[in-house]
Amino acid sequence: MSAGKKEAKGDTVGMTVPKKDFSEWFTEVIKKAELADLRYNAKGFLVHRPWSVLCMKEMYRLYEGELERRCHMPVWFPAVIPESNFKKEAEHIEGFEPELFWVTHAGSDELTERLALRPTSETAMYTMYSKWVRSWRDLPLKLYQSCQVWRCDTKATRPFIRGREFHWIEAHDVFATEEEAKNQVKEDMEMTEVIMHREFGVPFISFQRPEWDKFPGAVHTYAADTMMPDGKALQQPSTHLLGQNFAKSFNIRFKDKDEKEKVAWQTCYGPAIWRMFSSVVALHGDDKGLVFPFKIAPMQVAIIPIGGTEKEAYGLQKELMEAGIRVIVDASDNTPGWKFNQWEMKGVPIRIELGPKEVKEGRLTLVRRDTGKKTQVNRKAALKSVLTEGGELTKSIISKADNWFTGKISNASSMKELGECLKSGGFVRTELCSVGKDGEACADRIKDRFHAEVRGKRIDVEEKPKGDCVVCGSKAQEVVYVAKQY
Amino acid sequence: MSAGKKEAKGDTVGMTVPKKDFSEWFTEVIKKAELADLRYNAKGFLVHRPWSVLCMKEMYRLYEGELERRCHMPVWFPAVIPESNFKKEAEHIEGFEPELFWVTHAGSDELTERLALRPTSETAMYTMYSKWVRSWRDLPLKLYQSCQVWRCDTKATRPFIRGREFHWIEAHDVFATEEEAKNQVKEDMEMTEVIMHREFGVPFISFQRPEWDKFPGAVHTYAADTMMPDGKALQQPSTHLLGQNFAKSFNIRFKDKDEKEKVAWQTCYGPAIWRMFSSVVALHGDDKGLVFPFKIAPMQVAIIPIGGTEKEAYGLQKELMEAGIRVIVDASDNTPGWKFNQWEMKGVPIRIELGPKEVKEGRLTLVRRDTGKKTQVNRKAALKSVLTEGGELTKSIISKADNWFTGKISNASSMKELGECLKSGGFVRTELCSVGKDGEACADRIKDRFHAEVRGKRIDVEEKPKGDCVVCGSKAQEVVYVAKQY
Repeated sequence: MSAGKKEAKGDTVGMTVPKKDFSEWFTEVIKKAELADLRYNAKGFLVHRPWSVLCMKEMYRLYEGELERRCHMPVWFPAVIPESNFKKEAEHIEGFEPELFWVTHAGSDELTERLALRPTSETAMYTMYSKWVRSWRDLPLKLYQSCQVWRCDTKATRPFIRGREFHWIEAHDVFATEEEAKNQVKEDMEMTEVIMHREFGVPFISFQRPEWDKFPGAVHTYAADTMMPDGKALQQPSTHLLGQNFAKSFNIRFKDKDEKEKVAWQTCYGPAIWRMFSSVVALHGDDKGLVFPFKIAPMQVAIIPIGGTEKEAYGLQKELMEAGIRVIVDASDNTPGWKFNQWEMKGVPIRIELGPKEVKEGRLTLVRRDTGKKTQVNRKAALKSVLTEGGELTKSIISKADNWFTGKISNASSMKELGECLKSGGFVRTELCSVGKDGEACADRIKDRFHAEVRGKRIDVEEKPKGDCVVCGSKAQEVVYVAKQY
Repeated sequence: MSAGKKEAKGDTVGMTVPKKDFSEWFTEVIKKAELADLRYNAKGFLVHRPWSVLCMKEMYRLYEGELERRCHMPVWFPAVIPESNFKKEAEHIEGFEPELFWVTHAGSDELTERLALRPTSETAMYTMYSKWVRSWRDLPLKLYQSCQVWRCDTKATRPFIRGREFHWIEAHDVFATEEEAKNQVKEDMEMTEVIMHREFGVPFISFQRPEWDKFPGAVHTYAADTMMPDGKALQQPSTHLLGQNFAKSFNIRFKDKDEKEKVAWQTCYGPAIWRMFSSVVALHGDDKGLVFPFKIAPMQVAIIPIGGTEKEAYGLQKELMEAGIRVIVDASDNTPGWKFNQWEMKGVPIRIELGPKEVKEGRLTLVRRDTGKKTQVNRKAALKSVLTEGGELTKSIISKADNWFTGKISNASSMKELGECLKSGGFVRTELCSVGKDGEACADRIKDRFHAEVRGKRIDVEEKPKGDCVVCGSKAQEVVYVAKQY
């Protein structure tokens, strides 16, 4: 690849906003690193430029691989869902109706039935599931699709966080028993850990959402919340125990081994690659711009030929690319200093500087994006060193993100403390009378007073309350976490 | 993967319709091999099941790789296009308007401007191109996206051939000069050859389409036509020399090296993976069902454990999967014969039979899908043999398709001959007065009389006419090819 030359426009390179001013930093890095363009003339719809798409393609590849290893198979369902499908599950349509985009015409003709752009695919997929599931032999049925969904969110949109079109994966599974469905919820959480945390470096806490904050139509919703640099929580993949609600509405039944007809059990899981990308950008970036984990970097290596070493640079590029590494050679007419800044800002994990003296002596200089550490490497060890340093970079930035994340949890045992903790951001651990319907009034008081939400109770560790509800003072039933949110 | 158990439902296995009854065969194989389900309740929208999606994912991967090797970068544009964008290029809107799906409402609110579901992305992308292209340094700009497009085709839909939603790739390139744009057209044709022909095994002829059959807004349209088993032509990727038409309408200009502002030159290219899949199914399949080229097969190897060799089968699967091969173990309770039929029908290139005697003697039986040839292989040579036989199968089925395709070209020098040739199907080479506007009346007469179309003149070889126009009798200016079409 040789996109290098495109950069030679003489724009101002480098970030001007420090990361501590997160909101402005995020806006600037999206523009300067050419991740997306916000000027498309349909409000809330983003144009994704190569620098974000190259990364998200790798994120999709890793996630799809993990889903397939765990016996999910890929499908492609239509983007449109007939209105009548939505009407089958009452809670679901109530939850999504205000956000649906409606296709009403084809050419100059009005359609006999309106078609919604899918906001999520339960009501598309489950009409077919009822045809595909007949016997216990058809179960478990575990399918996923990588696609876009459309929701006319009326809140303020933010690129990669909240928008009217986003890119995600949705997995929809059917089981013969409730126990298997519950185990799938655990497997979904494991996938979030294995891919989002260990590969993308996005730490999270898994919560069971309170009763009043469930997915429309679910029995329970479990969500992985990460934290953004401004101290606000961001929901990452959620997995929903659907129980038999949809199976009853959509008639998903099977003849079991005992010859009896039974209603199936379901789960769904929604890893939103698009939103995970926002966390990758936000968590690993620094004052100089983006920092990508090695495996998912749009380009993993940038080679800067200095003083006429272009031929050697392209030779090295070829060698690394044959080993599957994504490499860019910047042979533009900009100064080496400009190029260093440019590829640092764009978050390329490894920079290779190649001068005439280095070529002559059979070595090269390798610079790591996260630490700036320079290493002299034998030319013959180029590939090995790139892989080693790339791996080290990933480990290092993930560990940094983990440590930061751990520090974003505080404790409060009174409304006063809760308010103070929330001022400095992060999750605040406190106690509540209930996460069932009874607790909603207390959660509303927290919301009204602090503009913060009860995220739910942890499911990775069991926590027993010791005192009283932070709001109403009655005996606490649950340890919960409160945070401001996106 | 262990989807094997899903198959143990006791349905009738195996095809009942021979391939010579192509239309019925195609319908049956789509259903029996579980490629797609046509029962979704929105007309013309297909539900794609894992067995087609696994293959198309590989097809996408190979095509995207080739595009990126040729310096195209991936982007993701919105699925919706504001109505005003379409109005900028008069011919384009005229061509597409009757087929557009319109989003008119969000929730219960009417949108201030209608949004079309993209039928193709010129009018989405070029509004941004006008912002991105400023200087000669920004050129060439070569971008592609893998996405779905929506067209409310009023003709009869056929799965993977004609539908209201299809999965494709579109590449949109911008150049400083007409010459570069013309070279891109050649490069697009090369990609069709390198991937569609040599990897997917779909032979084609490249035509320049007649003046009356161009893409709306293009200067010239070049299309790769393949042939289906029923003797009807099917258009595969087309590439369009857009000249400066769209660049003028969308204001794509740049400051050249000479400091003068110039209008850019454009091309676009549309490899429709979805439709290529139909040709893969149609061209390579036989009376027993599907036959896939090794590289793009949904599963490349099916291991059938016989007489209690499940453990060894899973061991072998693991070994092959670690080498990147897609392998299924069928450990269901069906008979070996049932399983042989099943995986033959599904087109798995290599079947491995593993009995207790073979395990004991350290060997296995390898069966090729295309020839049925059985080979005894040493267990230690399993991976190598799978790769060798897989490669041989691909070569063999492509060569078979090529030979068949070559035989589907005949010659006609009178309307009578043309009619006779068209009866047996295929391309008929004949001569026409013109492929410019002047020839349209003659083409219309062919269409009226034979329900066949003038596909255009070849661009891979130069052919000089020797006689008169087959229709009007005036001196022929062009050698053209006529065929019935999908």
